[in-house]
Amino acid sequence: MQNFDYQTPTRLIFGKGIIEKLPEVMNQFGKKILLTYGGGSIKKIGLYDKVKELLADFEIFELSGIQPNPKYDPSVLDGVKICKENNIDVILAVGGGSVLDCSKAIATGAKYDGDPWDLISYKAFAEDSIPIVDIITLAATGSEYDCGGVISRTETNDKIGYMDSHNYPMVSFLDPTYTFTVSKKQTAAGCADAMNHIMEQYFCEDSTLLNDGFMEAGLKSLMANAVKCLENPQDYTARAEMMLTCTYGCNGIYSLGNSQSGWPCHGIEHALSAYYDITHGEGLAIITPRWMKHILSEKTVNRFVKYGVNVFGIDSTLDKFEIANKAISETYKFFESIGIPMHLKEVGIDESRIVEMAHHIAVNEGLENAWVPLNENDLVKILTDSL
Amino acid sequence: MQNFDYQTPTRLIFGKGIIEKLPEVMNQFGKKILLTYGGGSIKKIGLYDKVKELLADFEIFELSGIQPNPKYDPSVLDGVKICKENNIDVILAVGGGSVLDCSKAIATGAKYDGDPWDLISYKAFAEDSIPIVDIITLAATGSEYDCGGVISRTETNDKIGYMDSHNYPMVSFLDPTYTFTVSKKQTAAGCADAMNHIMEQYFCEDSTLLNDGFMEAGLKSLMANAVKCLENPQDYTARAEMMLTCTYGCNGIYSLGNSQSGWPCHGIEHALSAYYDITHGEGLAIITPRWMKHILSEKTVNRFVKYGVNVFGIDSTLDKFEIANKAISETYKFFESIGIPMHLKEVGIDESRIVEMAHHIAVNEGLENAWVPLNENDLVKILTDSL
Repeated sequence: MQNFDYQTPTRLIFGKGIIEKLPEVMNQFGKKILLTYGGGSIKKIGLYDKVKELLADFEIFELSGIQPNPKYDPSVLDGVKICKENNIDVILAVGGGSVLDCSKAIATGAKYDGDPWDLISYKAFAEDSIPIVDIITLAATGSEYDCGGVISRTETNDKIGYMDSHNYPMVSFLDPTYTFTVSKKQTAAGCADAMNHIMEQYFCEDSTLLNDGFMEAGLKSLMANAVKCLENPQDYTARAEMMLTCTYGCNGIYSLGNSQSGWPCHGIEHALSAYYDITHGEGLAIITPRWMKHILSEKTVNRFVKYGVNVFGIDSTLDKFEIANKAISETYKFFESIGIPMHLKEVGIDESRIVEMAHHIAVNEGLENAWVPLNENDLVKILTDSL
Repeated sequence: MQNFDYQTPTRLIFGKGIIEKLPEVMNQFGKKILLTYGGGSIKKIGLYDKVKELLADFEIFELSGIQPNPKYDPSVLDGVKICKENNIDVILAVGGGSVLDCSKAIATGAKYDGDPWDLISYKAFAEDSIPIVDIITLAATGSEYDCGGVISRTETNDKIGYMDSHNYPMVSFLDPTYTFTVSKKQTAAGCADAMNHIMEQYFCEDSTLLNDGFMEAGLKSLMANAVKCLENPQDYTARAEMMLTCTYGCNGIYSLGNSQSGWPCHGIEHALSAYYDITHGEGLAIITPRWMKHILSEKTVNRFVKYGVNVFGIDSTLDKFEIANKAISETYKFFESIGIPMHLKEVGIDESRIVEMAHHIAVNEGLENAWVPLNENDLVKILTDSL
């Protein structure tokens, strides 16, 4: 077991009707709010009007149009500008992980004198930030309970995941009913994203009975509840379990004391969505089984056996490589069963830029330090297998 | 799934050698420290000297002699006096859960003008407290990651568990090597205490796939690692897993969104140790299988089936009551196997005060609201069966 230093200060307010606590919560942070959101789905479900009604006594500035794979330019830069010009006290992010990730970059960027990209690219480190409160409308990234974010910069094909302890949300509002209208496509992609968060922690050299149990429970919860959510989008219990399981995804609680995996699938997928702007969870689902097949070896097989037996119930008396291959195949089949396109070509990616992407990943993602190190040739192979 | 409002702000610093961070951590809170500890085991293992050496630049006041089942008089009252007279900035609790629980009562009591018992008995509520840092030397209560404490008042046979959000430790230092010298008796009792924390959350009306998996992993981790710790007290990995599994015990993470169980075994055990000052974990281990037998019914049987199949690997094709009874019997046998005396008579409790204790529990512990409500007759039955 490895040493660790862990703290998640975020307050989670979870359940039906909890939005009524919003004014009381916002009052703790000040009266000038930057409200951030995406393409308008929060208007369709009535959440935008509800927020405005509850916060009638506050001064609200707005930044809308934040896209999936949120963009440095214009979203982060626009948000920073609004905050600086208006002395914003608190950011209220309403939406999915992209809105929240973008808001995190704004929160630290607004308290920094230089180019906010310095912080995202770790050329400089934040000393202060604007507090963030969020209302989550998509079960997926877990950004509501971690201090990380992923920001894309179109002109350089950069999609960078960065972490800063200033960026833990102060309070996350999680009402599962706000996810009732999430499309089948996004429900499935959210499930795949959250499953991948767990798998990126599960496949490592050194874990514990406790953490393995946590992660296996997380994976089983995501699979069982995603199926229920797809069958009946208004199944409250399934949406609620899905939401909480996603929330734990990246904050560390699933794997305290584990050795690091290097998050290889996220490293690879960041290039896919930086170059092609695809849906993050779909990219992960496509890459994951190909990556698994690529790294399966005498060194890794026992982890796959544990995964296969405990997550998919595969017969533990079979040969270990048979169990491992079945587990990989079950992973693929599960993603396929919830409607995810399982080939890069289906999401508009062909072989033309694979070599270029592999080079970009090799240079930027540090995957030579992953549990199973990946070099440029490995990356070309995994991407080609994923076509 | 139930609504919840959850936050655990405590920072966990975990692993071998982490004590070196102590001066840097303490500096955040001030220079005047109240160092609290128990009967001197921290001196035997060299921790006392190490702390004093690391904190040579600080002004240290001491409160020693804090007992298991920590006492309001003299420990809490003495600690409050020292804090008030010397304007203590921060309390450093070094020891097990009892030292930390006592320190929590001191922390709020020192910032309260009236009798600190008002806070413990919820006649008044704290508005401020002295920050607490702890160094844990026993894997058991999880007090290092929650805001609760249990305080005993000898003259009234009161042993009260109270919670106050001011009492989350700011930082908990968890070095598993400090538990290498914990006796077999205390190792086993700590395991039973932590198992009971999980079982008190597990046996309820409404849980989730995720939480059940977390709790089953916790129980399996405690059982497997306790056996290893007893065999080889210096098994770092086993001590480390044991420690972290205990840490999560009472802070809520095992069961967010579950319905409440009412913590019946803790309610019963509080009377046992208030009247007889027995070891808390042993009292819990004795009570638990008798309580389980008492509440087994058509209403509860499916929970016991899940517990038996997932924790003890009992054949799921058997009759449900057969599985349930086997699960209860396995629970008893496990406690017995780690050397816990499994009858009240073995820890010095006879039938003479059972009726009196049952009355005291019924009046004070609110067990009419437990998952399976317990009245005075039920309590007499459970206690008598435990003789």
